[in-house]
Amino acid sequence: MKFLEDRIRQDGQVRPGNILKVDNFLNHQIDVDLLDEIGKAFYEKYKDSGITRIMTVEASGIAIACAAAKWFHVPVVFAKKAKSKNIDGDVYTSVVHSFTYDRDYTVTLAKKFLNADDRVLLVDDFLAVGKAMRGLIDICEQAEAKVCGIGICIEKGFQEGGDYLRERGYEVTSLAIVEKMTDDGQIFFRGE
Amino acid sequence: MKFLEDRIRQDGQVRPGNILKVDNFLNHQIDVDLLDEIGKAFYEKYKDSGITRIMTVEASGIAIACAAAKWFHVPVVFAKKAKSKNIDGDVYTSVVHSFTYDRDYTVTLAKKFLNADDRVLLVDDFLAVGKAMRGLIDICEQAEAKVCGIGICIEKGFQEGGDYLRERGYEVTSLAIVEKMTDDGQIFFRGE
Repeated sequence: MKFLEDRIRQDGQVRPGNILKVDNFLNHQIDVDLLDEIGKAFYEKYKDSGITRIMTVEASGIAIACAAAKWFHVPVVFAKKAKSKNIDGDVYTSVVHSFTYDRDYTVTLAKKFLNADDRVLLVDDFLAVGKAMRGLIDICEQAEAKVCGIGICIEKGFQEGGDYLRERGYEVTSLAIVEKMTDDGQIFFRGE
Repeated sequence: MKFLEDRIRQDGQVRPGNILKVDNFLNHQIDVDLLDEIGKAFYEKYKDSGITRIMTVEASGIAIACAAAKWFHVPVVFAKKAKSKNIDGDVYTSVVHSFTYDRDYTVTLAKKFLNADDRVLLVDDFLAVGKAMRGLIDICEQAEAKVCGIGICIEKGFQEGGDYLRERGYEVTSLAIVEKMTDDGQIFFRGE
């Protein structure tokens, strides 16, 4: 989507190691009007898919999921990264490796919030290697819920997450796909 | 606020140890229409306060902050609980003890997202002992930003956080204040 590519060009910052910082509008400070546009873009794509739940993983994904769910008028569910004393009862879990934080963690979702009747839209701010998204898909498979689509704000097209998911038949909708970043800060998007 | 008290009575669950679970509508699964009402309630209270930023701490607070910010049309900033490789530059930090997770953690906010010109509304889903909120206040003091108000969805009135903050002159707006919970699941709100 042009609006997100434009914003990334305007406010994103390239750092060594193929890091793209968008912390001034997406995942540390959040521009809520942009967020609303993002939610609407996912709605336009999946409004006829019978979505019953928008699912993500804490933390940055929560903002994206709520922005989308507002249009669909369905609940958000978010997998938690730490086991709280306050989660009781049966849970789905999946182990995920985070490259951002360089460690494994377990994502957890209470079973009562996802079941075989659900048609799920998975969303997240970034898709790179795709480990977090595969954890969410694993949980949906455990619940026998149908993954109707995967909505991503920024896909790093030069990493394998997007290809991996598309090859397995998932419809990945990335609002911006970064194909290449240069050390002097230039950003190239897929299709340009 | 009556709407949130009603929802807590309807869907909240009391657990031994004064735990109130609202995970089916507020902090694991999220009812986005309720969330919008919550955001609007904070806006009605603080719309004339010249708020420039809505601030919270990840993870559940993010949904609340975005719901409020949508009405104010100001950015959300959220303090992070783990130090990411992707946070660089100068940061404010504060150490917080979590009773939910039973450990200390450091909350971090990039300095570029808060400064002495800011008029901040702090928000969170719960206020109990108040450690997380005191961490956010600490960060605002470091930035010399003005805390104009504290918006809480559910305050546990039988714990000290609310009193502590009000005694220090902060205006705490709690949409529901739980005064007492009984082992058989009854919930009593302040003012009843």
